[in-house]
Amino acid sequence: MDDRKAVDELCINTIRFLSVDAVEKANSGHPGAPMGAAPVAYVLWDRFLKHNPRDPGWPDRDRFVLSAGHASMLLYSLLHLTGYDLSLDDLRAFRQWGSRTAGHPERGHTPGVETTTGPLGQGVSTAVGMAMAEASLGARFNRPGHDVVDHMTYVLCSDGDLMEGVSSEAASLAGMLRLGKLVCVYDDNDISIEGSTDITFTEDVGRRFLAYGWHVVGPVDGLDLDAVATAIDEARSDATRPSLVICKTTIGYGSPGANTPGVHGSPLGPEGARESKKTLGWPLEPEFLVPEEAKRHMGAALARGEEAERGWKELLAAYAREHADLAVEFSERTTGKLPDGWADGLDSLYGPGASPVATRAASGKVLNALAPRVRALFGGSADLAPSNKTNIDGEGSFAPDDPRGRNIHFGVREHAMGAIANGLAVHGGFVPYTGTFLTFSDYMRPPMRLAAMMGLRVVYVFTHDSIGLGEDGPTHQPVEHLASMRTVPNLTVIRPADATETVEAWRAALENTGGPTAIALSRQKLPVFDRTECAPAEGALKGGYLLWESGADPDVILIGTGSETHIALAAGRTLAGQGLAARVVSLPSWELFDRQPAAYRESVLPRAVRARVAVEAGVRVGWERYVGLDGAVVGMDGFGASAPYETLYERFGITEEAVVEAAHRLIRRSTVTS
Amino acid sequence: MDDRKAVDELCINTIRFLSVDAVEKANSGHPGAPMGAAPVAYVLWDRFLKHNPRDPGWPDRDRFVLSAGHASMLLYSLLHLTGYDLSLDDLRAFRQWGSRTAGHPERGHTPGVETTTGPLGQGVSTAVGMAMAEASLGARFNRPGHDVVDHMTYVLCSDGDLMEGVSSEAASLAGMLRLGKLVCVYDDNDISIEGSTDITFTEDVGRRFLAYGWHVVGPVDGLDLDAVATAIDEARSDATRPSLVICKTTIGYGSPGANTPGVHGSPLGPEGARESKKTLGWPLEPEFLVPEEAKRHMGAALARGEEAERGWKELLAAYAREHADLAVEFSERTTGKLPDGWADGLDSLYGPGASPVATRAASGKVLNALAPRVRALFGGSADLAPSNKTNIDGEGSFAPDDPRGRNIHFGVREHAMGAIANGLAVHGGFVPYTGTFLTFSDYMRPPMRLAAMMGLRVVYVFTHDSIGLGEDGPTHQPVEHLASMRTVPNLTVIRPADATETVEAWRAALENTGGPTAIALSRQKLPVFDRTECAPAEGALKGGYLLWESGADPDVILIGTGSETHIALAAGRTLAGQGLAARVVSLPSWELFDRQPAAYRESVLPRAVRARVAVEAGVRVGWERYVGLDGAVVGMDGFGASAPYETLYERFGITEEAVVEAAHRLIRRSTVTS
Repeated sequence: MDDRKAVDELCINTIRFLSVDAVEKANSGHPGAPMGAAPVAYVLWDRFLKHNPRDPGWPDRDRFVLSAGHASMLLYSLLHLTGYDLSLDDLRAFRQWGSRTAGHPERGHTPGVETTTGPLGQGVSTAVGMAMAEASLGARFNRPGHDVVDHMTYVLCSDGDLMEGVSSEAASLAGMLRLGKLVCVYDDNDISIEGSTDITFTEDVGRRFLAYGWHVVGPVDGLDLDAVATAIDEARSDATRPSLVICKTTIGYGSPGANTPGVHGSPLGPEGARESKKTLGWPLEPEFLVPEEAKRHMGAALARGEEAERGWKELLAAYAREHADLAVEFSERTTGKLPDGWADGLDSLYGPGASPVATRAASGKVLNALAPRVRALFGGSADLAPSNKTNIDGEGSFAPDDPRGRNIHFGVREHAMGAIANGLAVHGGFVPYTGTFLTFSDYMRPPMRLAAMMGLRVVYVFTHDSIGLGEDGPTHQPVEHLASMRTVPNLTVIRPADATETVEAWRAALENTGGPTAIALSRQKLPVFDRTECAPAEGALKGGYLLWESGADPDVILIGTGSETHIALAAGRTLAGQGLAARVVSLPSWELFDRQPAAYRESVLPRAVRARVAVEAGVRVGWERYVGLDGAVVGMDGFGASAPYETLYERFGITEEAVVEAAHRLIRRSTVTS
Repeated sequence: MDDRKAVDELCINTIRFLSVDAVEKANSGHPGAPMGAAPVAYVLWDRFLKHNPRDPGWPDRDRFVLSAGHASMLLYSLLHLTGYDLSLDDLRAFRQWGSRTAGHPERGHTPGVETTTGPLGQGVSTAVGMAMAEASLGARFNRPGHDVVDHMTYVLCSDGDLMEGVSSEAASLAGMLRLGKLVCVYDDNDISIEGSTDITFTEDVGRRFLAYGWHVVGPVDGLDLDAVATAIDEARSDATRPSLVICKTTIGYGSPGANTPGVHGSPLGPEGARESKKTLGWPLEPEFLVPEEAKRHMGAALARGEEAERGWKELLAAYAREHADLAVEFSERTTGKLPDGWADGLDSLYGPGASPVATRAASGKVLNALAPRVRALFGGSADLAPSNKTNIDGEGSFAPDDPRGRNIHFGVREHAMGAIANGLAVHGGFVPYTGTFLTFSDYMRPPMRLAAMMGLRVVYVFTHDSIGLGEDGPTHQPVEHLASMRTVPNLTVIRPADATETVEAWRAALENTGGPTAIALSRQKLPVFDRTECAPAEGALKGGYLLWESGADPDVILIGTGSETHIALAAGRTLAGQGLAARVVSLPSWELFDRQPAAYRESVLPRAVRARVAVEAGVRVGWERYVGLDGAVVGMDGFGASAPYETLYERFGITEEAVVEAAHRLIRRSTVTS
């Protein structure tokens, strides 16, 4: 027993001082949380976590999320010691260019990092998505005697995580959904950057989580390993409620600055590091010390993990023999492959002569056409499903008493919705989609950014995409959101002009395995282009294409997105009637277009033609990318207003007449100067 | 008693059917909430609210916030009936172009609307800011026998409001701050758009608010006026805790669709409206009926309000006699006037020969120089004050036991921080400021948007404004945030290049009484321009100015913002050394620059000079606004990385060499084509 205790302490101090030394060497980082939370994290990893360091992608591993991403060295130390492909040299290169040990944990960058964290609150909320993923997959695939999906989701979170609203939203939903396999370990150290939590965070967190329907365990002493283990055991044993395990810890434990904010985000300094080592009985040298005994003890995770995964593989093989179809689906889904023929029938959804239809309605139709084949589609709306058209008909709601349902009711919780979508995506097995009004994309920008950074296939359905929503007024009318989403690296924004382009938008979104896609959709009905007169809708897959022109060698190019493409086309026809060579370009996606070869882009927007008019019912700023200093933008300068949408278009001057007039102005000017 | 009851019912039904009729007439809107919440709102307005409909700006009025902004017709009905300048014709024009009755309540658009609502959660959180404003002003100005600041803040909120994370953040803070004069009436109707709250929101809201330290009253029957009144009384009587009054109501009460989502956001239809009137014993005609008795009873608010304000004015006059200086400050602050000489001394903060300094540090110095004179400055950071340099030295923390403190500790709650800043601003008496890292501006976009829409003077201090923050890595490195903030109408973004421009940024922010200002600041030290060689920093007030040039008639224009202006200047000098005429433009604020007369803009960026290189350590997209199709942008294409910042600049190619090379390329090209 004493031996065990000694080994435990050795391991914990190894974690602590790997963290301290790495932060010292980088002269940058956060030593406080690793020093305080090392015992808690060690207990979790040593006694509970089911994982195989040699196969970080094992589908049935337990998920571990370090929500307090600034404690990255804690995680890197654990990964190194348990045998992940992360060497001591990697730890020595903490926070340096090209190293695997970034300042905050980044998925895809470091083996064993399940999700990128750092922005507080995201990890907890993403973990809720992972636990939902497990529940949904289990309901779909498990059969008596064949629990091929059966794992826990653990989170280590901080005061800061629980102050963020997104974690409140996610926790409320998790409680409602009774996610019994979610265990959130709360590193409760009562310190944040500005001081004691007495000045910011005096609420009774346990009581709050009870109100959400969680199982709350503790507080326990975070230094008492057995107490922590008992608490985690208790948490795991509650299958019907997510659990919060409150562990009282001391930030910077063992350091001179212990229990003060100073130890949060700065190196201890050579003196502080030395003092800490003395206090905790650690050799002053060498740095990055990993005692043999610690290496052996924690390295045993490898053999345990391989054994566990072997057992699971046998289980899966037996499952495949009895449930061949399901096994195929399981394999496809966990590897992110879309089933063969997934896009069959999409092309015939909107044929010639289709009646005018809102692109949001078309989107709903596409989703429902895809859903039977692409069972990975799993999502819903932040309480706007009837408006967003995000419901999969004939499928139930994802509910605590029936996790087979494919329709998620996120509630009015856009921010958590975004983070949960990330959790579904990083878990594997899903193509998550979300729904809300485009204006409320502002509520979920932080997880959208993380999805883009992680390169996750998430589909954001954003309806009511302009003043075209009408009477709800400026609070509900996006004007800057298209422009502002286009600034996010690796986020693909698509604003289809009609039902046929909406089909292509969904196709592009599902084919985009390297990042999220936002689809902006109209509330109002829009004509369906007559493709016998216009170019085929497949052009939308290239982001922009020549939709229609009245003659080669254009005098003017009119560029539209979404509903305004119809304005551009009408203006083009009017100009043609006036004897001008007008070209109309549909540009539903800047990102897709910009990725095309230069020759293609030149063929659509010839460099020599500078008389260019863009029309979009949003802010003008940014459109100079395509119209340059010599073009014109028919767009908005300020917020919208409350009125029927036809009136708004008229009053804000987003009209055919305005486009025609701008075109004439530019053509005159170019004639004068050339 | 029975008479009273009859009048009450008459008034309540008047409110209900004004709402129903207006929604019918507009054929758009939300009848459900007004019908359900009318009794509760009526009790609050009839028996408690201290206001003067003839003077909606009376500083000591109670504040009423309709957080569930979709119930706008409820508020418009109350405003009309109590005598605000809002006629029956205004109600008849609900949701029409140019009317005063927008789809959702808009501050500045309709007298009596305290803050713009609609995006859920914002109203509750903004109200927390109003209550903080009251507490702070009271602590500053009240003297024994002279309680010149003494009013309540009431909120009416919905399920949706309380699902949003921002309201959780704000409620947690309000509980900690013990805002006893905040009463939140919860219209608890158990219905949201996708169905019963059983499928989304099963938590125990009362228990959650108890956990925050709130006083929770109810649930009470929302139809039982005396019970509601008793509950509100009880709430008001608790001076040390904010109160949540839970009222059980029925959405669409009296209509055929009562207690279903269908009645939330669509007109009842002629038949539904008729049925509802029959059910509640209301004449089918005329529409927009206001019975004399209801008019008389509710119109009495006017006389009560004038009497109350008269009493307050006498109090204020007596106060002014005894506390003349304070009375002057009170008057200035409540009218938003800055004290004479408020900017004295700013110019000498950074004179010739100043050492390199991070602009965040300069910002802290400016704030501290302003704070003694501009006592309206009130703010803080979302737990990053030591990094954001937002602390006012020598002033205490705004705390429950001492609300005199001017430093707010928002905790890790960026979203609530933004909403609270709005509350401080709309309350009057403050120039609120906030602080966080620029990357976390994403967490607070919804209230920033509302500040822009309302035209509020709020100052956002955003530090760590690029990859220049170094090792914390891509989660903490804004790359798209400058570009994305620039898309928001009426939000002024300023990214000063050095300490002297930082002074001007603050000056511009305080002078911007018509909207919010975001100041983006460096973590890293930056040289202070030698203004004997460069143009004066005042140019920054114009958003962009000619900083330096090697000769008139430039061959190339180099444009920089913030830290990269130094790169542009170095490149300009190198090009000059190579015999080229290089112009360097400092462009800290697109918005300020774009507001300048065309002639000024032409003088800085002559139309004829197309060889233009912009350099900014952020995404390139959008910069075509100034460099056009023929220029170049030295910027980023993706997310950042974790490494020392000098390495990042080098690796991402944001360097003098890159600018020089781009300049040469453009000059060559323009020589070839001309």
